[in-house]
Amino acid sequence: MSLPREFALIAQHFRRLAGPGALDLSDDAALFDPPAGRQLVIAADAMVAGVHFLPDDPPETIGRKLLRVNLSDLAAMGAAPLGYLMTIALPREIPDAWLGRFVDGLAEDQARFGLSVLGGDTVSAPGPISLSLTILGAVAPGQALRRKGARPGDKIWVSGTIGDGTLGLAVLQGALPADGAGFLAGRYRLPEPRLLLGAALTGVALAAMDVSDGLVQDLGHLCRAGDCGAEIEAAAVPLSTATQAALAAKPDLLPRLLTGGDDYELLFAAPADADSLIFSCANAAGVPVACIGRFVAGPADVVVRDATGAPLALSRAGWSHF
Amino acid sequence: MSLPREFALIAQHFRRLAGPGALDLSDDAALFDPPAGRQLVIAADAMVAGVHFLPDDPPETIGRKLLRVNLSDLAAMGAAPLGYLMTIALPREIPDAWLGRFVDGLAEDQARFGLSVLGGDTVSAPGPISLSLTILGAVAPGQALRRKGARPGDKIWVSGTIGDGTLGLAVLQGALPADGAGFLAGRYRLPEPRLLLGAALTGVALAAMDVSDGLVQDLGHLCRAGDCGAEIEAAAVPLSTATQAALAAKPDLLPRLLTGGDDYELLFAAPADADSLIFSCANAAGVPVACIGRFVAGPADVVVRDATGAPLALSRAGWSHF
Repeated sequence: MSLPREFALIAQHFRRLAGPGALDLSDDAALFDPPAGRQLVIAADAMVAGVHFLPDDPPETIGRKLLRVNLSDLAAMGAAPLGYLMTIALPREIPDAWLGRFVDGLAEDQARFGLSVLGGDTVSAPGPISLSLTILGAVAPGQALRRKGARPGDKIWVSGTIGDGTLGLAVLQGALPADGAGFLAGRYRLPEPRLLLGAALTGVALAAMDVSDGLVQDLGHLCRAGDCGAEIEAAAVPLSTATQAALAAKPDLLPRLLTGGDDYELLFAAPADADSLIFSCANAAGVPVACIGRFVAGPADVVVRDATGAPLALSRAGWSHF
Repeated sequence: MSLPREFALIAQHFRRLAGPGALDLSDDAALFDPPAGRQLVIAADAMVAGVHFLPDDPPETIGRKLLRVNLSDLAAMGAAPLGYLMTIALPREIPDAWLGRFVDGLAEDQARFGLSVLGGDTVSAPGPISLSLTILGAVAPGQALRRKGARPGDKIWVSGTIGDGTLGLAVLQGALPADGAGFLAGRYRLPEPRLLLGAALTGVALAAMDVSDGLVQDLGHLCRAGDCGAEIEAAAVPLSTATQAALAAKPDLLPRLLTGGDDYELLFAAPADADSLIFSCANAAGVPVACIGRFVAGPADVVVRDATGAPLALSRAGWSHF
C-alpha cells in the first residue's frame, strides 16, 4: 500500500530544509542540543492568508515573511537564531508547484540567516492558509533585551524606516499608486529582521522591542513596561524615499505611517548621553537608527507632536486582531 | 488610548497559563534555561476545526487535545515535558466565554502534566479555528526512543486500546450509536499521552512511535525506518469494552479500527525475549500493553492476519490529509 500524499509532500519539499537534530523529519520529534552556557530565547507567531499576507502573494515570500517576523522577535531580545519549527494548514488542492516555491523561499532565508528547520506538521484545512512558526535562539545568560527598562529622560530610538509596510499593503490592495521600484510592496512582503543591531544593542539599550503592530501602539508597550510616558516628534520618525513621496502626495497618510503594522524595526530606549555608543552599534550592524523622542515621567501615554509642537490626534494607536 | 481587545484577551485569559520564562507573555519572546546535561526534544502539531476536532466540541477539550497530541510525541521519544508555545487563529467574534473555557482546560492539563506555557500568538482568522502547539521536553543524551531500530524477529507491542478514537468520532458524527458512558467520544476528544510508559521504555524498546494516523500506516513507518516488514494478528490488537461491543454489533468496523486515526497509543519494538521487562515497564507506568505481532524480514509492508491466518484486505492504511 503506497504512502499518502502527505508523506510525499514532506519528502519532496520539506526534507531539504531539515537541519541537524531534525532527524530527517521522520521521527515524532526533533532532538536538539542547546548550546552550552546560553539561555534559549523562544517565540511563536502565526500568519493567516488575508490577514498577515495576501492570498496572491508570491509563494516564495510567504514562508520567508513568517520566518522573518519570528527572527524579528529574536532581534528584539538581542538573540542569535538556532532553528525553527513550522506548522502549515493548507487547502487539500494546493498545487505541488506552490509548495515548491514556498520551500524555495524558506531555503534561501535559511542560508541567509543561518538556521534550519527542526520539525513541524503539515495538515489540510478547509479555510485559508494558516501558518505557525516557533523560533529558537540563544543569548548570553541575563543579557536578553527586555521591554522593561525605559526611564523618564531616556531617548527613544528606532531602526530603519517606518510606515513602508503599511503603505506596501495599500499598494498591493490598489489603494495607493505603486512606487516605481516596488520598494513598498517588498517591505510588506519581506521585512528585514534587525538581528545584528539587536545583538549589538545588548548591554547598551535599556529596553527594546520590535515594531510590528504600529509605532505608537508598540511604544505604548515600552511605556507600560517602564511605568513612564513617551513624547515623539512626527518629523523625526525616519521615512524611506518612497514613503516620503507618498506622504508628499497625500499628507493625510501620516497617522497611518505612525500606527500601521508590518514595520519590523527595532524600537529601543537608551540613556540620553549614549548617542555615540548607539551610532557605533548601528554602524557595526549596518542599519541606520534615528532618535525620535524621549520617555517622560507620567502615565503610560504616547504623545506625537507635529512640527509646531502640537499633539497629533490619532484615531487608533495600532493594529488589533480583535 | 486604550489597548485593543487582543491585549485584554491575553491579560484576562492566557496570562494565567504562563510559567517561569514566559515573562508574563509581555515580551517579544520567552527566556528558557534548558536543563543542564539533557537533550531537548521538540515537536510541533497543528489542529484545525472540522479536521482534527469538531467545531462544537466543548472548548475545554480542544486545547487539551492539542496539548496531549504533542505530549504524545514526547512520550514516543521517552521525553519528559518542560513547556510549550501555542498560536491560535480565531474568528473575530469569538466569545470571551469560549476562550475562558478553552483556557480552563489547558490550565487543568498543565497541572496534570507538569508544564506551563512559554509564549505564543493570538490572531484573527476568517476561517475555522486553527491552532498550533510546539512542545519542549528533555531526555538524557542519546536515550531518546527513535522510530529506527526494529529488526526481523522483534515483537510488536502497543499500549492501551486501539480504535476508540476513530469510533468516538463516528459517534459524535452520528454515524454510530453512542456507548452509554460516552467513553468513545471521550477518547476522541481527550487522548491519554503515555508519558510514563515512554520514559520507562527508554533503553528497553528498540524503536517506538505514537499511533496517530492509523495503526497499520504508522506501523509501516517503523518498518521503513527499520528496513523490515511486519505481521500482526487482528485478534491480538487490544480493544476497549466499548469498541468490542461496537465491533460485535457491526463486524465490518474492523478495518476502521486498524486504520483510523486518533489513537495516541505507543507502538514499539522489543526483543523477542524481553516480555517480562516490557510488562514490568507497563506495570510501573500503570498502562496495559499487548504484543500484536512480529517484525519480519522483507519489504516494508504490514500484513494483518485474521483468525484463520489469512491476510485482511484493507482499502487504506491510515489517515491522510492530502
